[in-house]
Amino acid sequence: MTIAATAAESRAGALYDQDVACRVLGIRLGDVAPGRATARMTVTDRMVNGLGTAHGGYLFLLADAAFSFACNTYEPVAVAQAAHVTFLLPVSAGDELVAEAAERVRRGLTGIYDVSVRRGSETVAEFRGHSALLPGRTRPTTQEKSA
Amino acid sequence: MTIAATAAESRAGALYDQDVACRVLGIRLGDVAPGRATARMTVTDRMVNGLGTAHGGYLFLLADAAFSFACNTYEPVAVAQAAHVTFLLPVSAGDELVAEAAERVRRGLTGIYDVSVRRGSETVAEFRGHSALLPGRTRPTTQEKSA
Amino acid sequence: MTIAATAAESRAGALYDQDVACRVLGIRLGDVAPGRATARMTVTDRMVNGLGTAHGGYLFLLADAAFSFACNTYEPVAVAQAAHVTFLLPVSAGDELVAEAAERVRRGLTGIYDVSVRRGSETVAEFRGHSALLPGRTRPTTQEKSA
Amino acid sequence: MTIAATAAESRAGALYDQDVACRVLGIRLGDVAPGRATARMTVTDRMVNGLGTAHGGYLFLLADAAFSFACNTYEPVAVAQAAHVTFLLPVSAGDELVAEAAERVRRGLTGIYDVSVRRGSETVAEFRGHSALLPGRTRPTTQEKSA
Repeated sequence: MTIAATAAESRAGALYDQDVACRVLGIRLGDVAPGRATARMTVTDRMVNGLGTAHGGYLFLLADAAFSFACNTYEPVAVAQAAHVTFLLPVSAGDELVAEAAERVRRGLTGIYDVSVRRGSETVAEFRGHSALLPGRTRPTTQEKSA
Repeated sequence: MTIAATAAESRAGALYDQDVACRVLGIRLGDVAPGRATARMTVTDRMVNGLGTAHGGYLFLLADAAFSFACNTYEPVAVAQAAHVTFLLPVSAGDELVAEAAERVRRGLTGIYDVSVRRGSETVAEFRGHSALLPGRTRPTTQEKSA
Repeated sequence: MTIAATAAESRAGALYDQDVACRVLGIRLGDVAPGRATARMTVTDRMVNGLGTAHGGYLFLLADAAFSFACNTYEPVAVAQAAHVTFLLPVSAGDELVAEAAERVRRGLTGIYDVSVRRGSETVAEFRGHSALLPGRTRPTTQEKSA
Repeated sequence: MTIAATAAESRAGALYDQDVACRVLGIRLGDVAPGRATARMTVTDRMVNGLGTAHGGYLFLLADAAFSFACNTYEPVAVAQAAHVTFLLPVSAGDELVAEAAERVRRGLTGIYDVSVRRGSETVAEFRGHSALLPGRTRPTTQEKSA
């Protein structure tokens, strides 16, 4: 593994380890590479809206998490500035979702990342996130975490 | 109260009553009028990401919930088709958020709704949702709920 | 008229006076106030696509122009960073369009502006633009223009 | 060339041939394949705004044209329903722009297409368009055109 790939995994991993919301929701971090990250989530009964399908907010949250890990594979810390999501198919409790984030462009302090949320071979949502870098902001480290 | 206003409250209220996710997250439905709805949420420790701030997904979810109640103040059932969100300020555990959704335009089977998410007098996120009507789809009623 | 209103008109007007593209397309600047601007355009035969309707790009351009004038009613210079547009109705050659831009939120170096494009009483497109301020960048003045 | 590729070229080509706006602006249709299209444009003095750079509307229009050709490589006719654009770099008169549109997902009556607008090796804008199919709507044919 290259140094960049190792650093990418380490940075995204440290962020994930500190992420209480992901732990509460059972979101798992998958493959990570510079500018890329995968996150998985099983939809639960607690995520269902009044129409009996998963709240779009949880699909957004999963995509946003993958996006956040992907744009934090570099220094410095990046945050989501804006995002657009399209809901293609309804999702139900019990569904296994995979969100794959890939960088489209990065320039100066901003980046654009595309995330597809899939259930098996079907795309259930498409997400595009815009990140902003925060120069000078420190990131949690694995050391902090275990402290 | 007009007949339209009473029907709007009844429809949004029935949808809210069935919404497990809103109940789990402590989201409360506020004022409702035709094409309008307010939803409130207190950010909890369980919503925090690895940077120590609330996951943007929860701000989106609150805005999306207000949007969903607003576009379901009419018949037939409406669902979110797409949405754009801009994050203006970070939000922390303990913050009280209010999302106000208002219809911008409705035409044929689609509608556009704008939602501001505020913490006191500050706007922390702006959301614009696109709805699609599902003619023929039944909505939960208060009767079903109590059944 | 207040000092702010006079300054707003003067700034947007100077920008408009320098705008070759607006002149070429016959776009007229209408009412201006702090954070607000109106622009008008008559769709011509030269704006029509292969389906016989106006190119969406020209609706976008008109909305974007109104947005640009609205966010340049203050100092310093603001530019469009991103925008979302929804096309609601097809538009034809000969149609008279009015784009009304209004500020939704402004904070630090960014702002969000909503623009409705109308043909008579019908809304044909809805636009939301995100602006970025460019501190230190000079704006054209009426003096430069006449020079 | 496969039958699908030939049909894609023929459909996009017929639409382009009828497109007055593209001809007026000097937009050239490049490579076409099912779900993909490239369009080129040279920025002219007539496209410049009051800040001395190309109107974002013209970058949008070029991207939107490439998107339209890409989503019309199939039957039936498709139109733009909504789009988001991010402006990454200012563009000047004389710049040669290339917009490459590629399908991200297509499902039922809707599709999502991503378009990068480049000047040489630099990406100057990123565009994501949502298409809607219009079953029953006829498309211009090369025959109609020559008639």
